[in-house]
Amino acid sequence: MEKLIEKKLAERGVSIEKIAEIVYVLQERYVEGLTLMECREAVRAVFKKREVQHAVLTGIALDILAEKNALPSPLLEIIRNDESLYGIDEVLAFAITNVYGSIGLTNFGYLDKTKLGIIGELNNGKNKQVNTFLDDLIAAIAAAASARLAHSIDGNIYLNYLNESD
Amino acid sequence: MEKLIEKKLAERGVSIEKIAEIVYVLQERYVEGLTLMECREAVRAVFKKREVQHAVLTGIALDILAEKNALPSPLLEIIRNDESLYGIDEVLAFAITNVYGSIGLTNFGYLDKTKLGIIGELNNGKNKQVNTFLDDLIAAIAAAASARLAHSIDGNIYLNYLNESD
Amino acid sequence: MEKLIEKKLAERGVSIEKIAEIVYVLQERYVEGLTLMECREAVRAVFKKREVQHAVLTGIALDILAEKNALPSPLLEIIRNDESLYGIDEVLAFAITNVYGSIGLTNFGYLDKTKLGIIGELNNGKNKQVNTFLDDLIAAIAAAASARLAHSIDGNIYLNYLNESD
Amino acid sequence: MEKLIEKKLAERGVSIEKIAEIVYVLQERYVEGLTLMECREAVRAVFKKREVQHAVLTGIALDILAEKNALPSPLLEIIRNDESLYGIDEVLAFAITNVYGSIGLTNFGYLDKTKLGIIGELNNGKNKQVNTFLDDLIAAIAAAASARLAHSIDGNIYLNYLNESD
Repeated sequence: MEKLIEKKLAERGVSIEKIAEIVYVLQERYVEGLTLMECREAVRAVFKKREVQHAVLTGIALDILAEKNALPSPLLEIIRNDESLYGIDEVLAFAITNVYGSIGLTNFGYLDKTKLGIIGELNNGKNKQVNTFLDDLIAAIAAAASARLAHSIDGNIYLNYLNESD
Repeated sequence: MEKLIEKKLAERGVSIEKIAEIVYVLQERYVEGLTLMECREAVRAVFKKREVQHAVLTGIALDILAEKNALPSPLLEIIRNDESLYGIDEVLAFAITNVYGSIGLTNFGYLDKTKLGIIGELNNGKNKQVNTFLDDLIAAIAAAASARLAHSIDGNIYLNYLNESD
Repeated sequence: MEKLIEKKLAERGVSIEKIAEIVYVLQERYVEGLTLMECREAVRAVFKKREVQHAVLTGIALDILAEKNALPSPLLEIIRNDESLYGIDEVLAFAITNVYGSIGLTNFGYLDKTKLGIIGELNNGKNKQVNTFLDDLIAAIAAAASARLAHSIDGNIYLNYLNESD
Repeated sequence: MEKLIEKKLAERGVSIEKIAEIVYVLQERYVEGLTLMECREAVRAVFKKREVQHAVLTGIALDILAEKNALPSPLLEIIRNDESLYGIDEVLAFAITNVYGSIGLTNFGYLDKTKLGIIGELNNGKNKQVNTFLDDLIAAIAAAASARLAHSIDGNIYLNYLNESD
């Protein structure tokens, strides 16, 4: 299933590499000696979660259906125009970030505003695709992978702290 | 837009009356002298919220596309079979209940388990439709309308209490 | 830290056994041959999550402070009287159930309404404690442990299905 | 009750003015001719929501109790040190932003990362208070007020659009 998710994203123009680059920018100041390879591994780990797989399959399907004019009105126009108050694209994104607790959510909010890297390119729609769901899904995956890295690293420091103070 | 939502639901076999009946069963023990008309009004008020409208439009579109075999695999099979671990149907439902705070969410959880009234009929799929999203959307709307009633009534009692204790 | 959580709950009158009994009632119809020992293990696994530990520590501290009249007004009265519209008790509970996806949330909603087992006893306040947070925390832990069991079992069936359909 | 919230925040060093300034920075590029007075009004409207009032009362009480060493260990140390993985401070903040849909949440994520204005001052703890909850509560209130403004303005444009396309 992870392979399928990777393939579906690649067909829409998004490689694991591009997502890993966003994770790197978000986390390099917090994680000493962070490598792009670790970021790629964190993204792959996020792909293994069922909530993530289902959100990606559903969101990409809606983007493609909108592209083909195969949705009913007014949903078709709302998704094609990426209406700012639609909100269901963010709702699917939250399904991804929720699994990684509050750090996932705040990272997502930051990426949604700043549109780092591939997220900005998708949002600008240079590739003539409908990316209403895709840009939020990518932001959520990058946010989740960042939260995963943060948990694994801070976790060690934190546990040391608790052992001492207990 | 409320009219459109009402029409879309009616086309899938769900009237406001049927949703109001669930609200009545949930709230009659808490609200003295509650009438079915008040329940219908609470449902209509929920229909006015944009989050609700977008969740309903999106969920019903996915149900119909699954019915017509117009979704890609494996999303098609997952939605047609109402896979218990899909989860995106509940995610859309939470987008509805969230707006009404924690009471909305707990009411939804209860309806999702007990499948009162029309929710159970949809879930059993007697009408040969795909209702993977619809049953959760209806449960969420009924839960939200119940929370609305609870807030408006308890609100008065609660405000009195606070005024006295302040 | 798990041991600390277990101890804090025991001091408030809640054993792992009592929580496991609720999990058993919720899941026995779904999981063939389920034993109370498996339910206890699922509860212990939930205790290992940091979100759960922090929610439990915070909620129990607020209950005890309310008991000792050591909170400022009107928060003191709101928590002592378990005001139905307070909502922060459920918010802490959602922090626990969120980690286990949508199944965790719907189980919580059901338990919050039906008040099975020890949850009902706490809610009735027979033990003269303030249990405003505790009853919701226990419902959330039981819901999360149930979701954990559901994920692990359905997960296998589900993966078989996907392998066949891919 | 709004007056009480305003007073409690003032006692901790946060005026409505300071929150309104953050709202202004977030929204000025989206809302033509936005004034600080409109931002203040939006903040006041957020204070009227019960979820907001309860989250503020609870969070400030925990900050003050931590300051007075009146919490049990290890919760005391966790809150005094503003442990990055505690997460309950963000959970209370989400209770505030949730009411305003997905725009509220993404604004919060952005503020939590960038720590604009008074949020950064609180986070640096220049005032020798424990502000573990307070900085997140203020970020959430500013995010909610921004979402409120966005909804009210975009709402008009959006409704025009829908009327035309219907």
